[in-house]
Amino acid sequence: MKESTYSKTSKTLFSRILRKKTEARAASEKLHLEPGALVYTGDDTSLEVALEVIQYNEEEIKEYTLEPESLDEIAPHQGVLWLNVVGLHDAELIQKIGDRFSLHNLALEDIMNIHHRPSFDQYDDNLLISVKMLQVSNKLLDTEQLSFVVGPNYIVTFQEKPGDVFEGVRNRLRKKRGRIRTKKSDYLVFELLDVIVDKYLAVLTSYDDEINDQELKLVDATDKEILAEINASKKEINYMRKHAYPLREAIHAFSRSQHITIEKKTRPFLKDLLDHITHVTEIIELNRETINDNLNTYHSQMSSKLNDILKVLTIFSVVFIPLTFMAGIYGMNFEYMPELHNKYSYPIFWGVLILMAGGMLFYFRRKKWL
Amino acid sequence: MKESTYSKTSKTLFSRILRKKTEARAASEKLHLEPGALVYTGDDTSLEVALEVIQYNEEEIKEYTLEPESLDEIAPHQGVLWLNVVGLHDAELIQKIGDRFSLHNLALEDIMNIHHRPSFDQYDDNLLISVKMLQVSNKLLDTEQLSFVVGPNYIVTFQEKPGDVFEGVRNRLRKKRGRIRTKKSDYLVFELLDVIVDKYLAVLTSYDDEINDQELKLVDATDKEILAEINASKKEINYMRKHAYPLREAIHAFSRSQHITIEKKTRPFLKDLLDHITHVTEIIELNRETINDNLNTYHSQMSSKLNDILKVLTIFSVVFIPLTFMAGIYGMNFEYMPELHNKYSYPIFWGVLILMAGGMLFYFRRKKWL
Amino acid sequence: MKESTYSKTSKTLFSRILRKKTEARAASEKLHLEPGALVYTGDDTSLEVALEVIQYNEEEIKEYTLEPESLDEIAPHQGVLWLNVVGLHDAELIQKIGDRFSLHNLALEDIMNIHHRPSFDQYDDNLLISVKMLQVSNKLLDTEQLSFVVGPNYIVTFQEKPGDVFEGVRNRLRKKRGRIRTKKSDYLVFELLDVIVDKYLAVLTSYDDEINDQELKLVDATDKEILAEINASKKEINYMRKHAYPLREAIHAFSRSQHITIEKKTRPFLKDLLDHITHVTEIIELNRETINDNLNTYHSQMSSKLNDILKVLTIFSVVFIPLTFMAGIYGMNFEYMPELHNKYSYPIFWGVLILMAGGMLFYFRRKKWL
Amino acid sequence: MKESTYSKTSKTLFSRILRKKTEARAASEKLHLEPGALVYTGDDTSLEVALEVIQYNEEEIKEYTLEPESLDEIAPHQGVLWLNVVGLHDAELIQKIGDRFSLHNLALEDIMNIHHRPSFDQYDDNLLISVKMLQVSNKLLDTEQLSFVVGPNYIVTFQEKPGDVFEGVRNRLRKKRGRIRTKKSDYLVFELLDVIVDKYLAVLTSYDDEINDQELKLVDATDKEILAEINASKKEINYMRKHAYPLREAIHAFSRSQHITIEKKTRPFLKDLLDHITHVTEIIELNRETINDNLNTYHSQMSSKLNDILKVLTIFSVVFIPLTFMAGIYGMNFEYMPELHNKYSYPIFWGVLILMAGGMLFYFRRKKWL
Amino acid sequence: MKESTYSKTSKTLFSRILRKKTEARAASEKLHLEPGALVYTGDDTSLEVALEVIQYNEEEIKEYTLEPESLDEIAPHQGVLWLNVVGLHDAELIQKIGDRFSLHNLALEDIMNIHHRPSFDQYDDNLLISVKMLQVSNKLLDTEQLSFVVGPNYIVTFQEKPGDVFEGVRNRLRKKRGRIRTKKSDYLVFELLDVIVDKYLAVLTSYDDEINDQELKLVDATDKEILAEINASKKEINYMRKHAYPLREAIHAFSRSQHITIEKKTRPFLKDLLDHITHVTEIIELNRETINDNLNTYHSQMSSKLNDILKVLTIFSVVFIPLTFMAGIYGMNFEYMPELHNKYSYPIFWGVLILMAGGMLFYFRRKKWL
Repeated sequence: MKESTYSKTSKTLFSRILRKKTEARAASEKLHLEPGALVYTGDDTSLEVALEVIQYNEEEIKEYTLEPESLDEIAPHQGVLWLNVVGLHDAELIQKIGDRFSLHNLALEDIMNIHHRPSFDQYDDNLLISVKMLQVSNKLLDTEQLSFVVGPNYIVTFQEKPGDVFEGVRNRLRKKRGRIRTKKSDYLVFELLDVIVDKYLAVLTSYDDEINDQELKLVDATDKEILAEINASKKEINYMRKHAYPLREAIHAFSRSQHITIEKKTRPFLKDLLDHITHVTEIIELNRETINDNLNTYHSQMSSKLNDILKVLTIFSVVFIPLTFMAGIYGMNFEYMPELHNKYSYPIFWGVLILMAGGMLFYFRRKKWL
Repeated sequence: MKESTYSKTSKTLFSRILRKKTEARAASEKLHLEPGALVYTGDDTSLEVALEVIQYNEEEIKEYTLEPESLDEIAPHQGVLWLNVVGLHDAELIQKIGDRFSLHNLALEDIMNIHHRPSFDQYDDNLLISVKMLQVSNKLLDTEQLSFVVGPNYIVTFQEKPGDVFEGVRNRLRKKRGRIRTKKSDYLVFELLDVIVDKYLAVLTSYDDEINDQELKLVDATDKEILAEINASKKEINYMRKHAYPLREAIHAFSRSQHITIEKKTRPFLKDLLDHITHVTEIIELNRETINDNLNTYHSQMSSKLNDILKVLTIFSVVFIPLTFMAGIYGMNFEYMPELHNKYSYPIFWGVLILMAGGMLFYFRRKKWL
Repeated sequence: MKESTYSKTSKTLFSRILRKKTEARAASEKLHLEPGALVYTGDDTSLEVALEVIQYNEEEIKEYTLEPESLDEIAPHQGVLWLNVVGLHDAELIQKIGDRFSLHNLALEDIMNIHHRPSFDQYDDNLLISVKMLQVSNKLLDTEQLSFVVGPNYIVTFQEKPGDVFEGVRNRLRKKRGRIRTKKSDYLVFELLDVIVDKYLAVLTSYDDEINDQELKLVDATDKEILAEINASKKEINYMRKHAYPLREAIHAFSRSQHITIEKKTRPFLKDLLDHITHVTEIIELNRETINDNLNTYHSQMSSKLNDILKVLTIFSVVFIPLTFMAGIYGMNFEYMPELHNKYSYPIFWGVLILMAGGMLFYFRRKKWL
Repeated sequence: MKESTYSKTSKTLFSRILRKKTEARAASEKLHLEPGALVYTGDDTSLEVALEVIQYNEEEIKEYTLEPESLDEIAPHQGVLWLNVVGLHDAELIQKIGDRFSLHNLALEDIMNIHHRPSFDQYDDNLLISVKMLQVSNKLLDTEQLSFVVGPNYIVTFQEKPGDVFEGVRNRLRKKRGRIRTKKSDYLVFELLDVIVDKYLAVLTSYDDEINDQELKLVDATDKEILAEINASKKEINYMRKHAYPLREAIHAFSRSQHITIEKKTRPFLKDLLDHITHVTEIIELNRETINDNLNTYHSQMSSKLNDILKVLTIFSVVFIPLTFMAGIYGMNFEYMPELHNKYSYPIFWGVLILMAGGMLFYFRRKKWL
Repeated sequence: MKESTYSKTSKTLFSRILRKKTEARAASEKLHLEPGALVYTGDDTSLEVALEVIQYNEEEIKEYTLEPESLDEIAPHQGVLWLNVVGLHDAELIQKIGDRFSLHNLALEDIMNIHHRPSFDQYDDNLLISVKMLQVSNKLLDTEQLSFVVGPNYIVTFQEKPGDVFEGVRNRLRKKRGRIRTKKSDYLVFELLDVIVDKYLAVLTSYDDEINDQELKLVDATDKEILAEINASKKEINYMRKHAYPLREAIHAFSRSQHITIEKKTRPFLKDLLDHITHVTEIIELNRETINDNLNTYHSQMSSKLNDILKVLTIFSVVFIPLTFMAGIYGMNFEYMPELHNKYSYPIFWGVLILMAGGMLFYFRRKKWL
C-alpha cells in the first residue's frame, strides 16, 4: 500500500519536469577533454542532420535543403542567408560549417554542448547567442538549446531536434509580411529571439492560472494534496526562473553590444526585446511571491487548525475531569460516608455537577475559547 | 453552509482588486504576431474613439474635438498642442496618428498593449512615456494604462476609457492659473505625471489608515477575521507596489534623459516629481513593514494563546488525575481493605486530597504557570 | 474590564510616538493643487511668524528681530547673514522671503510642506537642505522639519515652532568661541546640521540603555509585559531609522556637492558630519539587531516553557493512567473475580502499582525528561 | 548505548569533510612574524621536494626532473618552460626559485601559506594565481592549494603533495594533441585552471545525485536519518561554496587583467573559463536551494505528523471522556438512585453511550478531522 | 534561589564582553560642544602621558622617551621618526603635538574620541588612520582605539593605555631584521596595521574552536546550557564583526589612497593587508553561519523531542482510555447486568482488553509512531 501512495504523490511532485541526465552529470562527461573539443552532450544521436537554407532580399526569397557535402556551394549574395542546422551530434559537419563561416572553435564547442548556459559571445567576424527554448511535451516541461551565429549578411541557427517555433517567422518571410524582408540579419535574429521569449510567456500563462487557482482553493481546503500541488508549481516556476535569468543576461549583452553586425535602426527593437524578457522575469517573480504567500497561508491554516483541535480537547477534558472525579468519590466503598444515605444526595449531586460544568463553560466563553 | 463561508471569506480576501484577464494570459494573445503589430489587448472595444484637442500659448487657448478624418488639419502653430486620444481599439486610427506625429512603430505597439509595463523610450523626434494610473472604482482597485508622446511643441496622450484625472490640469490651462501657460510641452507632461503620482498617494492614504487600524485592533482581537483583513491589505499593497516601482523607473529615466524636448528650466520640476514618486514607494515599504509586523504580532498572540490553553489543560489534568486515582482505589472491591472500615477514613481521605491538590497548585505557582 | 486591559497595553505599545496626522493623509491634502503651490501641511497655524536675524563677521555681531514688512532693509554686507524664520503658515511672507533671496518656487513648496522627505536640492544661486529634527516632548517621540537655504554669504533657516537646539551655536557666535566667526555660511550650516545629528544621538542613547536592560530582564522574566516593551522599542527604533536614512542621504549629497557656496576648507568638516550620521545609523542597526535577538530569545523561552509544561503533563498522565486503570479493574462487580477474595491482594496490588510507577519514572529519567 | 548512538550520528554528520587544523588556528601560527616571512603552514613536511620540468615549443618537447642545486641551469629558450614544484616546506628552495624567476617576496609567502585564500596578484614581471583544488580521498572532501606563477615564456606551478590532475594536459602536450603546443604560457595556465574547475564539477556531480535522491526519499520517510543526511549534504555544499566563490573571483580578475603576458588570442578562452566556473557556482546555488527546500519539506512533514498525532489523541479522549464519566455515575453507591433498579436501564445506558459517541464522530467528520 | 539562577545564566551570557559605558552614552557626552572640540571620551584619565620616540634609517636607530615640554626638539632628520603617544586625556599636549605635526583639528578630535568609528582621512600633509584593536583581558573581550598619523618621514601613533602589540615590530626595527629598516613611514604603518589584523585572527581562533566544539556537543545534548553557550558565542562573534568591517573599510580606503606619502613599492603590501583583513571577515562570516546552523539544529532537536513526548503521551492515553472505560462499565451498579453473573465474564473481559490494546499498538506501529 505504501508503494502506491508513494507513486501517487511522487507523480504529483515530480512528473511535470522532464528528468534528463542532470546537468552536472552531463557536464562531467566532458571532463579530461581538451577545452574546445567538439563533444555532443545530449541524447539525440540517431536522427539525420538536416541543413535548411532560406535566402532572401527585398525582392525574392529562395528556400531549399542542402546536402552536407555541398556546403561550399552557398554563394555569397545580396540579401540575407539563413542556414538552419537541425541535429548536433555530427562533430565533423559542425566543424565544416564552422570553417565555412569562420566560427571560433570555442563557439562550436558551446553550440554542441547542450548544457552550456545561455550566453552571448562576440568574435571578430560574428556573434554567438546561445539560449534555452522552453517546451511542454506530453505535459512535461523541457528545454532545447538553440544557438544563433550572426554575421553581417548571414545567420546560422543550430537546434537539437526537428520541429521549432520559427514557422511564424518563416511565413512572414515567405509572404513578405511586415518589415522583415527589408531588413538585415540582425533584425532576423531579433525576430527569432522574440519568438523564444514569447514561448516563455506562453508556458508561464498556464502556470499563472494554476497558481491563482491554488490561492482560491486554499481558502477552503487544507488537505495535503494542495500542499503537493503548490510545491509542484514552485518547482516548475523555479525551473523557468533558472533558465529565464541567464536568457535575460544574454539578451542584455546582445542589446548593448557595439558589434558592427548590429545596425542602429535595430536598436529600438532590441530594447523592446529586453523589455519583453524583463516582463517575463517580473511575472516569474510575482508568481514566486504568490506561491510563497500560498505556502504561508497553508501553514497558518494548519496551525490555526491545531489550535482548534487543542481547544476542543482542552474544553472536553477540563469540563469532564472534575465531574468524573466527583463520580469516583461517590463510587468509593468507605463504610461511613454520610452523603450516600441521604435521600436527596443524588439529585443534589447532579445539581452540583451541572453548576460546575456551567461555570467552566462560562469561564471559557469569557476567555473567548468558545 | 461551506458555500457561504467560502463566499464570505473569499469576498474579504479577493474582492477588492478587480480581476481582469491576467496579464500573462493577455500577453500570450499576442504570441505568433510580428513584433510591432498593432493589437489592442484590453476589453473595451465598444466605445467610439474620441480626439480631444487643446491648443494654447501664453495669450490664448483653443479647445475642440476632432473628427478622425480631419486629423491632418491640425496646423503647426505657436505654442503647445495637446491631443488626447480616448479609446485604443482602432488600430487604423492609431496608425494614422502615428504617421502624423512620426511615431516609431514599436511606440504604437506599446501604446495599444495595455499590459505593457511602464516604460520610457526615446526616439529621434519624440519621447514615449507609458504608465499605469491607479483607480478605485466600486471599491475595486484597478489600473488604466496612459501613454504620453512628447515632442518639441506637442503632446499626445492615449487613454483606454473616458474620464480621467486631468481635469485639474485643464482648468489651470483654461484659467491661466500658475505658470503652466507660459511653459512648453515638457512642463505639461510633468504636470500630468504629477497628477498620476498624486493619485497613487490618494489611494495609498485610504490603505494607510486601514493598516494602522488593524494594528490597534490586534491588541485585542485574535480571531481569524483580522487575519483575513491583514492579508487583504497585504495583497493590495503588493498590487500597488508592483505598479509603483516600474513607474518610478520610468520617471527616473525621463528625468535623466538628455532629449532636446526637455528644457533646462524643467529639470528641477522633474527632480521634484522623482522625489514625489520616491516618497510614494517609501510609504508603500513602510506599510509593508507594518503589515509584516502585524502578521508577526498575530502569530505571536496565537501561540501565546496556545500556551495559555495548554497551561489550563495541564493544571486541570495534573491536579485531578491523582485525585481521581485515589477515588478509584477506594472504589475497589477487595474483601480485605482495612481503610474502608475505619470510621474516620472518609474525612481523612478528603484531607489528603486537599493537601495533594494544594501542593500541586503551590508548585505551579512557583513555576509561574498560574 | 476589557476596556482597561486595552488601554494599558495600548499605552505601552503606542503612546511613546506622537501620533500626528499620518504622512500619507497629510500629503493627500495637497492633491489637485498645482505643483509648486505654497501650502502649509502642518497643524501650528496660530502663532505669530518671527524673523530672527544674526549678522556677523570676524570683528562684530549684530542680533535683532525683523518686522515682516522691513524685509527688504536687510543690507548686503561683509560677513554672514543668518535669517531664522519661525512659523511656516504664512504663505505670503514665505513668498516674499523667497523673492528677496531668489529662491526657486519648488524650494518654497518643500519648505512649507512639513511632510516633505529630507532632501538636498541645488539651485543656481543657493542650496536647499531640508531635514527632520528628532524631539522628545512629554515622553513622546516627535519630529520637526527644518529647512536651510544656503547662499554665498547668507543662510535662511525655516522652522515650524519656536524653541530649537541652535542655542549652543548662537552662543559660540556671540562669544566668538572656536573658529565659527572666521568662517563663511557653509561652515555655519555644517554646525547647525551637526547639532541636529547630535540630537539623534542623544535620543538614541536613552533607547540604547532601555534595550540593553530588556536583554537582561529577558533572562529571568517571560511574561507578556516584556514582549510589549520590546515591541515598543522596535517601533521607536524603526521610527528613528525611517528619518535617519533620508537624513544621511541628504548630508551625503550635500558633502559631495560641487556648488560654489561650499569652500574647499569646509570639506573635511562635511566628511566628519557624514561620518557622524553614519555612526548614528550604525548604532540604529545594532539596536535593531539586539531587538531581534531579544525577540528570538523571548520566543525560544516561550517554546522551551511549552516543552516543560507538556513534559509535566505527560509524565503525570502516563504514570497515573495505568494505575487508575488498575484501580478500575478491581472496582468491577463481576461475581467471579478470584483476586478480590485473597487476603493479600490489596497489599500486592499496591506493590504492583508502585513498581509500575517506578518503572515509568526510571524510563523517563533515562530519556532525560526529568 | 549512548556512546554508540553518538558515534553513528556524528559519523554521518561530520566524517565526510577532512578535518584539518582549522584555518584560523593555522593562520594564527603566523602571528608575530614579519609580513612576507616564508612559513609553510601545512602538515606535509616529510617528503622530498621534486622539481619537474617540461619545455616545449611547436616542434619539440623535453621532460626531465631537476636537482634543486642545478636550478640555474634552466636555459632561456624558445617556447614555454613549465616548472612544477611538488612540496612546499623547503623555504630555502622556494626562495631560490623566487630569485630565479624574480618573484615578489609576498608572492612567495602566499605560495607557502596553504591557508591563503584564492587570489590573483599582478607584479611587474609575472602574475600569481593561487587556487584551491578540490579532492575526495577516502570519501573525505579535502582541498589542496595550487599556485601558478605566469611569466611571458614560463610558468611555475607549486603544489603540496605529489599526484595531480594535470596528467591529461601533460598528455596533450606530449602527443601534440589540440592547439596547446602552438600557444604561449598564458594558454597553458588556462588549460590547467580549466582542469581544476572541471574537478569541482566532478565532485559536485556526486553530491547532485545524492541531493536529488534525498528529495525522493523525503516523500516517504520522516525519520531522523534523512535529516542527518540532508545536513551532511548541506555542510559539504557549503564547503564547496566557500572555496568556489574566491576561485571565481580570482579567475574573474585574471580574465580582466591587462598584463602583457596575456595575449589577445587567449581572451576568448579566459571568458570561457569564467563561464565554466560561473556554471559551477550556479549549480552550487541550485543545490543549496534544493537542500533548503528539502529541509522545509522535512519540517513541514514533521509538523503535519504532529497534527495527526494530536488529532488521534483528541478524538479518542473526547469520545471516551464523557462515556467514562457516565460509567462513573452509575458506579456510585448512593442509596437512592432510581435508574439502577430499572430493568431496562443497562441497555438504555448503552444506547445513550452509542448515540453520544456517534454524535461526536459525526461532528469531527464535519470538521474534517477524520 | 532565583537570584542564583539569574547570576549563573547571566554570567554565561554576558560576562565575556567587557561592559563599558555604551558607545551611544559616551558619544552623547560630546553633545552641545563645538565640532572639533578636544574631549577625551574614555575612562583612563589617571596615568601619566608618555611620549616614546624611535628614530631610524638604514644605518642607525635611536630610541628614547620625550618630555612633553621638549616636543619641539625633535629634529628633522634623514630616515623615519616614530612618535608613540600613550594616554589621550591631556588635551593641551595633544593640541601641541597636533601643531608640531600640522594635524587638522578634526583629526585631533577623532584621536581623542575613543568611540570614533574606524576611519581613514586624508589631509594635505598627512593621513589619519583610526582603528580598534581587539584585546582579551581577564577573559573579557575589549577594544582599544589606536590612531596613526602618517606623514612623509614620520608616523605618530596614539594609544589609550600602556602595553601594546607592537613589541614584535620594535624588535625587528632594533635587530634590523627583514626589510623594515630600509623602508619609509608608509611601510612601518603597514606593519603596525598587519599586527593589529593578526590580533583579530588570534582572538578569532579561540572562538573558532569553541564554536566547532558546540557543534559536536549538540549531537548529544539538548539542555539549555548549550543554548546559552551558543548565544554567548553569537554575541562575541557579532562584537568582532561590528569592529572588523569598519576596519576593513578603513584599510580599503588606505590601500586605494593616492596620497604622496604612499610609495608605489608599498602597494603590494597594502593589497596583502587588505587580503588579510578580508580573510578575517570571511572567517567571521563562516562562524556566524555555523552558529546559525547550530541554533537551527538545537531548535530542530527541541521540536523533535516535543514530538517524541507527545507520541508517548498519545499512545498511553489512547491505549488506556478505552480500557479504563470498559472497567468503568463493569463497575456500574445496575441491578440487571447479565454479564456480571456469568462465570467466564472476567477472563473474557481480560481477553477483550488485550485484543483492543494489541490492535491499537499494531495500528500505531503501522503509522510508524513506535
